[in-house]
Parts: sequence; structure tokens; C-alpha cells
Amino acid sequence: MAEQTSHTLNDTELQQWYKERGFGGRVGFGERPALLVIDMAKAWLDTTSPLGSERVQAIAPKIVELLEVARKAKIPIFFTTMEFDENMTEAGNVSLRKLSHWDILVRGSEWTTLDPRWQRQPNEILIKKQRASAFFDTSLLANLIGNRVDTLIITGCSTSGCVRGTAESSFNYNLNTIVVRDAVADRSPSAHEANLFDIDNRYADVVPSDEVKAYLESLIP
Amino acid sequence: MAEQTSHTLNDTELQQWYKERGFGGRVGFGERPALLVIDMAKAWLDTTSPLGSERVQAIAPKIVELLEVARKAKIPIFFTTMEFDENMTEAGNVSLRKLSHWDILVRGSEWTTLDPRWQRQPNEILIKKQRASAFFDTSLLANLIGNRVDTLIITGCSTSGCVRGTAESSFNYNLNTIVVRDAVADRSPSAHEANLFDIDNRYADVVPSDEVKAYLESLIP
Amino acid sequence: MAEQTSHTLNDTELQQWYKERGFGGRVGFGERPALLVIDMAKAWLDTTSPLGSERVQAIAPKIVELLEVARKAKIPIFFTTMEFDENMTEAGNVSLRKLSHWDILVRGSEWTTLDPRWQRQPNEILIKKQRASAFFDTSLLANLIGNRVDTLIITGCSTSGCVRGTAESSFNYNLNTIVVRDAVADRSPSAHEANLFDIDNRYADVVPSDEVKAYLESLIP
Amino acid sequence: MAEQTSHTLNDTELQQWYKERGFGGRVGFGERPALLVIDMAKAWLDTTSPLGSERVQAIAPKIVELLEVARKAKIPIFFTTMEFDENMTEAGNVSLRKLSHWDILVRGSEWTTLDPRWQRQPNEILIKKQRASAFFDTSLLANLIGNRVDTLIITGCSTSGCVRGTAESSFNYNLNTIVVRDAVADRSPSAHEANLFDIDNRYADVVPSDEVKAYLESLIP
Repeated sequence: MAEQTSHTLNDTELQQWYKERGFGGRVGFGERPALLVIDMAKAWLDTTSPLGSERVQAIAPKIVELLEVARKAKIPIFFTTMEFDENMTEAGNVSLRKLSHWDILVRGSEWTTLDPRWQRQPNEILIKKQRASAFFDTSLLANLIGNRVDTLIITGCSTSGCVRGTAESSFNYNLNTIVVRDAVADRSPSAHEANLFDIDNRYADVVPSDEVKAYLESLIP
Repeated sequence: MAEQTSHTLNDTELQQWYKERGFGGRVGFGERPALLVIDMAKAWLDTTSPLGSERVQAIAPKIVELLEVARKAKIPIFFTTMEFDENMTEAGNVSLRKLSHWDILVRGSEWTTLDPRWQRQPNEILIKKQRASAFFDTSLLANLIGNRVDTLIITGCSTSGCVRGTAESSFNYNLNTIVVRDAVADRSPSAHEANLFDIDNRYADVVPSDEVKAYLESLIP
Repeated sequence: MAEQTSHTLNDTELQQWYKERGFGGRVGFGERPALLVIDMAKAWLDTTSPLGSERVQAIAPKIVELLEVARKAKIPIFFTTMEFDENMTEAGNVSLRKLSHWDILVRGSEWTTLDPRWQRQPNEILIKKQRASAFFDTSLLANLIGNRVDTLIITGCSTSGCVRGTAESSFNYNLNTIVVRDAVADRSPSAHEANLFDIDNRYADVVPSDEVKAYLESLIP
Repeated sequence: MAEQTSHTLNDTELQQWYKERGFGGRVGFGERPALLVIDMAKAWLDTTSPLGSERVQAIAPKIVELLEVARKAKIPIFFTTMEFDENMTEAGNVSLRKLSHWDILVRGSEWTTLDPRWQRQPNEILIKKQRASAFFDTSLLANLIGNRVDTLIITGCSTSGCVRGTAESSFNYNLNTIVVRDAVADRSPSAHEANLFDIDNRYADVVPSDEVKAYLESLIP
């Protein structure tokens, strides 16, 4: 009898098939976490923006809750936004041809400004990135090392872009990487699910926010 | 009346919806391409390996064809494999917990050896990587710059892992990035399609091998 | 008779001794240069700053001249400055203990603002760096690749810090790297000379500005 | 009366002048160190090599001593060597024009092989680098993070090349960086001293091996 292949498997069977092949192990939490909030600025939240989505809006309460407990636990908190110069010279022709919506991400504009609900504090670093991964050409890694962080907890948007890119980078550097299932979002529900599947199997533990909050509460001094 | 959202769109409509939002523009070919063949070694080709898949085997003829025309066009060619020390000390505990199958990827073992069908030549660099992206902690970027390459043509496996990770890195560095649709493969057909969708919308042009071959033939001296 | 060792050599003999051992070859100019002006902001120019030096002021006319011909040749021009948040959270404790003068390099302050003599144009990218090398955690490399640059011409300060760090990075990426001898400066004349010696032997051609200007003039359309 | 400038200062005065300007602060040891031994292979030790120097040979006993105590303290130990393919394709034309002696650094040759005195153990990672900095395009940083290292202790050669490049990279990532004064060496005594001066003022604490050994002994379980 022929071996059953991945082609004929449903989602649960496919997950099992991956596990048998040594994907998707649990990494778990370390001892010194940081919380990262990716691109929760107007360009991604507001539905009048070409990038905006009500699905991103929907995770806002979860992010507020996680920020609250992270501040009580006194762990480092980082935010990101994206920004380029007004002429998009910094973006480069190649990238801008692929992603022409970058032209609204102008430094200092309302689109790139974080939502006030996060109440970012002066000691919470705002990373201004120009690519999907929050690690690419930014000080995030140096700041994580400077804080002796061993665990990166990722929230924000989009699951199929910046969240996944950041989770892959974080894994690459041997950080325990946690993506908060109900605190990340994507314009497309199918891309959201497909990418959480890949992320969980390859790069990070995808974990519900209740479990993350319980972990952070255990660290409150 | 409510705007139609991505939730209710079929695949073709979703692609259109992305394009309207400034995703998925065409980057096109540049003037100085290189060909990259990712992880076409026994561990990923042989179905007795936990990582192996007959879908990866199936793209072998396309890769042979592309290599042939690339050599005629005298463009730089790069291969990758993955390798760690026998004790997996180089892999690190965190990464190995997530991807336990790495333990077969031992430096010098048959699993990490390229398939002889590629007939790698002495001037075709073999990149030994330890992460999904062929750029991560390798000399690939320096070698591309040293050859004044502006266009990276990506083939090999897996679409949802190393191909996507490499395409994202290549985009990040402003290279024209081309993923050859029928010369990349994945264990899972659904992950293959979902990732080609993301790659084409965010990082690289996904192009059939016939089009890539015609471009390379136009460069034959 | 014992071989003469480097211990007993004068400067000219030492240079010769290095050359015999395969250091200090000439790289030369490529075809697509960019001009980089490092940290020519008030903090490094003004002698009321702890970082300031009249030796940095002294190279200002050479930089004005190079900018003029670079603009005529229509090559990409990049500037750098350094900047951190007001609380120096971005700097990190470790780095700040070593270099406590960073505390004046506050984003948006007069110290980090470029000197008006450079008349930076909107299409000339200003890189905001936080380390010596202009490549570290910045978009410089991606922007050079995006412009298909093959040659980086380095000016500014300090020879023993940011100039050397940047020259080493540029070499690492296989760019033809040129340091303009009389358009770089250092607080300490001995550190200036010692570092130009190392740079010329290891990373970049150290070339007088007259030679660089002649090269750029040859590129004027 | 004119302020005294760096031009007229002797070495001790210059060091004082730097300190007054916020250079050269003490970083100190952290809690989780690693020991790095740079390029202590035949090419740099043997005086029949164009790169070899008896000054590099002279530090061998200090490195043996540090390895012994590091192994007792059970801290991570890393070695580096440099290696390229036989055709030097991996080196690239640009780099090879500057440093033509790289042509002896062929993978698997006797020149690139570590000296047996170090008795490298299977769990001590050997980093194969192609540039001065041990961090450039290698897994060193990921391996340090995977081991939750906060302090990098640097030994080996050359002070004016790989030691300095590595110290700068280590500083960039906010690691406590220690260069062991009497366990690093350079072909040229003047380059050795000039670079230790720069390193101590800008990137790392330059510390005698006795002090480093006492620190490591305090960590023996």
C-alpha cells in the first residue's frame, strides 16, 4: 500500500505529519522576555488606509492587556513603525515597484504614528523599520542583547508579512520566540492561518494570549 | 452597503484586492542575474529522509535545464546546503527544539551532499547555511555584490521555508528577486501555494521557468 | 644572519614589509561610485563639543569640493549623523559606559544636525546611525545595492572610529572602497596616521582628494 | 592662552584627554562569559607563512592558560580560522586585490588548521570566517545568544585586524567586551599599541590575562 502523502491530508493530519518529521517542537518561555508590538500605527489600523484592516483593529484590546501586564512585570517593551523620506528615495526603486503602498509611509506623517491607546512610555523604544522584519537594519537585536533578553513575545500585524518576518529573524538568533495567536492579525484570514501554521512549525511557538499573560504575571516582582 | 472584505473573497478576487492596495507589483529582470539552487541535497530529495519529498524530486529536471542555460550565459551560480557539527552544538538548543530533524544535517554526511545531477563546477560557490535564508550568516550577499549581481533567480526547496526566507532577504537588499514557480517545491501542496501567493505579493516575482530560460538565453554571449 | 623583523623597521620599511606579505594591494575605482560624508555635524565640528575638533573643521572645504563634483556627476550621495533618544535607552548601558559622550547625541538636537555648508538635497539620504560603522543597523547597504553602486568614497570623521569602521564594513561587502586622505580627520594626529596605515593595508585605498575629484569629473555626463 | 591640543600631547596625556571627552570608560565583566580564540592556526603562527609572526607564537602560553581555566569554569569556548575555496572564488576579486595573501587560506589546508596545543574539544565551535571580524557572516552571534552569553573575552591575532574588527562588532551588539592585552598579538609592535589604544577607548576593556584568569576562576563551580 502506498504511503499517504501530504497531498491528501486534512489540516490536523498535516500538522501530525509535520511533527513526525521533526517540525513544530515546543521551545517554551525563557527567563527574560521582551514584548514587541509591530506596526500598530494608523496606516495598518485605519480602514481609510490602503493597508488598513478591521482585523488589525480587532486585536487592539489584546495588545492593551499585554502591555499592561508587561509594564507591571517591568520587562522591556518595543514598538515598531515603518517610515521613509517623503521622496521615497530611501525605499529604492526595486522595493517600491513590488510594494507601491509604501508611498504613504512618510516619516512624521499621521499614517506612521502609533495609536495613542498604547501609551508608549519614554523608556519603550520605537523601532523605525523599512522592511518586514523588525530586526532588519534596526537596533532591535542590539537592544535585546543589551537587556539580556532571551525570549521575544511578538504581537501586531501583519501575520503574513512583518510578524512572520520578525519571528523568523528572532528564531535565527536563537531567541525563544513566541507569537501571540490572538494578538496578531492579517488582512486576509487565509494568509493569517497559513502563516501561523508555518510559523508554529518552523520558527516560533504560537500561543494564546491567556497563556502569555499568565507567564508575564508570574514575573511581576 | 458594506465594503466586501477579504474574508469573503476567492483566490482570484483576493489577488485583485491585494493589487488594489499596492501589493504584488512587477519588479522584472535586471541586467546581471545570478542563479541560486537551494538545498537540493539528499536530505530533501530522498524519501527515506524525514525531510525528503517526491515533490522536491519532481523539480529536478527544471533545475537541470536552468543550470544548463545559466552556464551558457556565464552567469554566477550558487548552491546551498545545510550543515552542523555532529553534536549539534552549532545548532543551539532553542533552534533544535523547534526543528529536531536538523540532527541528520551533519557536516560531511551523505544527507547534506548535493545531488550529482547538478554537476557543480569549481567556480560555483556552495553556501553552507544553518538557517532558512541563504543570506543568513553566509557570504552569499558579499559574493553577489562582488559579482555586481542585480537579479537573484531562486530555485530549490522548500517553498514555505528556505525559498521564502531567501526571497524575503533578497528583497530586503533591493535585488530584483525572481522565484521560479515550477523549479521550487514543498512537502505540502497547500503550504507551497500559500507561500507563492505571499512571495509574489510581497517580495519577489513568481515566474514560470520558460520565461526565466528565455531571459537567460537572451544573455548568452 | 637573523631576518629583519617589523620591530626594527621605520614607517617606509614597514609599508614595504607589509606589501611583501600581500597586504595593501590597490583595489581602484569601479564604475558606479557613491559619496559618503560621515558625521559632519555640530557635535564633531564645534570645539565647544566634547567630541569637536578643529581638525574636523579643517577638512570642510575638501568635502564641499567633493560634493560639488559628485552632484555634477549625478552620483548617489549619503550623509550620516548619530542619534539616540533623550534618555539614552537606545544606547544601552554597556555602550554608554564605554562612550559616555554619546549622551549629547540626542535626536533632533543641534549637536546631531548636519552643518549647513553641505546643503544636503532631498534625494541625498541621511543615515542615522548608532555605531561607528555607517553600515551597522542602517539602510546604507540596501540603498547602495538599490543604486547598483560598486565603489564607496568615504569622507568625514573620525579616522580612528567611524571612518575606519565604515571602510572595514564596505570592504567586507566587496565594494571598491576609497578613503579620501585629506577629506577625513581625527582629534588625534597619531591615531589619524595609524588608522590610515591600517585602512590602506587592509580595507580601502587611501587616495588624495585631487585623484578622487579627477575620477568623478570623468563621470560628468 | 590657547587650549592645549591633542597634537602636542604625549601618550599618557592623550589618554587623559580622551577620558575627559567621554571615551574609554570601563565596561567590566558580566555574568556569563565566553572565550574566543581568533586565528591561532598555522598561517598566523608559522614564520614560514607570509602571515606568520613570532609575536603571535609568543602569546601561545597565555592562550593555553586561559583555555585551561575556561574549561574548568565550563564557559563556552569558540575558535576561528579563515578559509576559502581553492580557486579563491569565494574571496572575490575586490578583496583579493587588497589582501593577496588570502590565496594560501585554502579550506582543509595545513595553513588554516588550528594549532594542536589548543586541544579543541568537540563542543567548542570552530568558526570559519572570511573577514576580519569573527561576527561577519558567521554563526558566532547566534551561538553567543543561544548560550545567553553577555561577555566576550577576545584573544588571538592580529590586534590591528581580526582582534579589532571582532571587538568592534562585539561592542556593537552590546556585549561586555574584553580584549586580553597579553593574549593578543600583531606582526607590527606599533600597530599593536595603536590599536589597543583605539580598542580600549572605543570598544572594549583591554585587560591583562591575570585579571581575566582571576575572573574566570571565580566562576569555577
